[in-house]
Amino acid sequence: MTFTLPTLTDIRSPALTLTLQHKIDNKTKPLGSLGRLESLALQLGEILGTDAPALQDPQLLVFAGDHGLAARGVSAFPSDVSWQMVENFLAGGAAVSVFSRLNNIALTVVDCGVNHDFLAGLPAGSQRPGLQVRKVPGGEQGTADSSAQAAMTALQCQQAIQNGMALVKALPGNALLLGEMGIGNTSAASLLLSRLAGLEIEVCTGAGTGLDASAVQRKTKVLREVLARHPDATTPLDALAAFGGFEIATMVGAVLQAATERRVIVVDGFIASSAVLVAHALQPLVLQACVFAHRSGERGHEFMLQYLGVQALLDLGLRLGEGSGAALAWPLLQSACAMLREMASFESAGVSEKAETQTAQV
Amino acid sequence: MTFTLPTLTDIRSPALTLTLQHKIDNKTKPLGSLGRLESLALQLGEILGTDAPALQDPQLLVFAGDHGLAARGVSAFPSDVSWQMVENFLAGGAAVSVFSRLNNIALTVVDCGVNHDFLAGLPAGSQRPGLQVRKVPGGEQGTADSSAQAAMTALQCQQAIQNGMALVKALPGNALLLGEMGIGNTSAASLLLSRLAGLEIEVCTGAGTGLDASAVQRKTKVLREVLARHPDATTPLDALAAFGGFEIATMVGAVLQAATERRVIVVDGFIASSAVLVAHALQPLVLQACVFAHRSGERGHEFMLQYLGVQALLDLGLRLGEGSGAALAWPLLQSACAMLREMASFESAGVSEKAETQTAQV
Repeated sequence: MTFTLPTLTDIRSPALTLTLQHKIDNKTKPLGSLGRLESLALQLGEILGTDAPALQDPQLLVFAGDHGLAARGVSAFPSDVSWQMVENFLAGGAAVSVFSRLNNIALTVVDCGVNHDFLAGLPAGSQRPGLQVRKVPGGEQGTADSSAQAAMTALQCQQAIQNGMALVKALPGNALLLGEMGIGNTSAASLLLSRLAGLEIEVCTGAGTGLDASAVQRKTKVLREVLARHPDATTPLDALAAFGGFEIATMVGAVLQAATERRVIVVDGFIASSAVLVAHALQPLVLQACVFAHRSGERGHEFMLQYLGVQALLDLGLRLGEGSGAALAWPLLQSACAMLREMASFESAGVSEKAETQTAQV
Repeated sequence: MTFTLPTLTDIRSPALTLTLQHKIDNKTKPLGSLGRLESLALQLGEILGTDAPALQDPQLLVFAGDHGLAARGVSAFPSDVSWQMVENFLAGGAAVSVFSRLNNIALTVVDCGVNHDFLAGLPAGSQRPGLQVRKVPGGEQGTADSSAQAAMTALQCQQAIQNGMALVKALPGNALLLGEMGIGNTSAASLLLSRLAGLEIEVCTGAGTGLDASAVQRKTKVLREVLARHPDATTPLDALAAFGGFEIATMVGAVLQAATERRVIVVDGFIASSAVLVAHALQPLVLQACVFAHRSGERGHEFMLQYLGVQALLDLGLRLGEGSGAALAWPLLQSACAMLREMASFESAGVSEKAETQTAQV
């Protein structure tokens, strides 16, 4: 196998970290009083390698793909919704379209294997604005049913990862926001979490787009069957190939490439985090470049965040995916950078510092 | 007493609420999948009286005042920091300056009784951009020491409230963001919470700008003494006059006026919430117009939110005040409105809806 993944190096520099912490501590505010925004500012400075970080030309990629397992009824919505929602993204009417537009984030949909031809009827070689077609040979209509066979072959899995790497290489800017669309992909994410984190499938499985209790029970039963079908898929790449999907595999490549290039990676919810979970299993240092936008309302996400040892920014009960949570959290990243660049220090503003000793005349 | 407060009416209309909920439910997303953002959108539609709310010309007022009680050593910072930080706001170097600028929020500082003359040396009648001087006669240098006497007289308290009402009447736009500055004002907020919510002062008292454990104990002891000094200050206005401060009283008037005018009120942290606590005790319906931006890291804020029965948007361990948390949360309000105005419905986008019955072929 000639397939090679990028090798990440530690992005932290002790000198820069000290400089950043000193700068944050000397801003005109009580020590630590901006809470989580301060650790976010520190991380963004470390990723971008400067004590005056500026986010430029943010790119939100919505990785879309279909899942053969959806035929087993694991989702509340039919598979056609995958392509219909891609059209909705392109028309500007989806949540992620609205939030990206509001925040000046460029939005691109990547067809990683949606069961639809978005270029049908157009002359050969045509393109559609905001769409990149990156299907994998043999996976044009989505993954195979993972309850019957591997969702993709090892070669397809590698190709999807390489597609993700190539996509990010060509992107402008220094920040990548991860989004996804694919009916059935909470199932793939739950399977990856269960296998890679060693958790029972029950705690990894949730309502997805809105299953009721008995449907969640049926979904869990199907997923247990899928796990039993692939007992040997224990390495990150084998698990990814066994459970899918193409959009997750492409995202894994995008995460690895973005981390290598020291782009800021804004991770959306459960499915985007599952791509980071796989990338982390391959290269643990990817986490240094990842900002987790929110804690999803989808069961399993909290445990995934715990397993990765990370904290999310927002906790709004979101469970939509698409990158909607990443776009909603984006202004916090801008604020963290602006804090570092624009806030005055005690010295520059002529503000008195905290008293050395605190005495109360009681 | 000729002092009259505005009388609020219920802003909700059952018909509009139904329209809003129907519109939210038919957006192209699984039911409820935007979590807290959906209830926020509903509330903003109700406040602004439309199913297509648009926030216009947001105004962040930083109410500033000094506290006689600060002489008792209840803060980690000297009182001079109040006026120094006002200068920092005006110069654009404070956290709230940076976050307001980033989000196109107009920032105005209101001198409600800071121990400083910001117009010193200027010709009579001069103004400074971004500053409004609204001192109360006799309270030009801040409140009296509430451990020795009432922080303000009943008349001063009324005047401060009326100042806040007049300020808001003159504001453009349909949204008011509340900020504040005043060394010692977590003490006033803790006292108001203790008295109006009937809680022990221990659970209401925190580190403020950064007291250590023994200093918090000393602060708590001082505050217990203040409460004992004013046993009869049990009505909202009497408690406000007894404990102060001028910035809180002015903010109470601003909240009442803004709610009357059906402006969206974005409440920052512990001290801004204490003004809402007082306004709520006078007119419970003010809460309908209030969006609580974040849950502060300051002890007492969580209990205040619980007492009011409200949920905050962000939970980032912020404890800076100034309105910084309100400005950070602002983009979420914009997103909620944009969701209502711009997102496609299932019908308009041609997206299939959830299956009526969920069947899994297991």
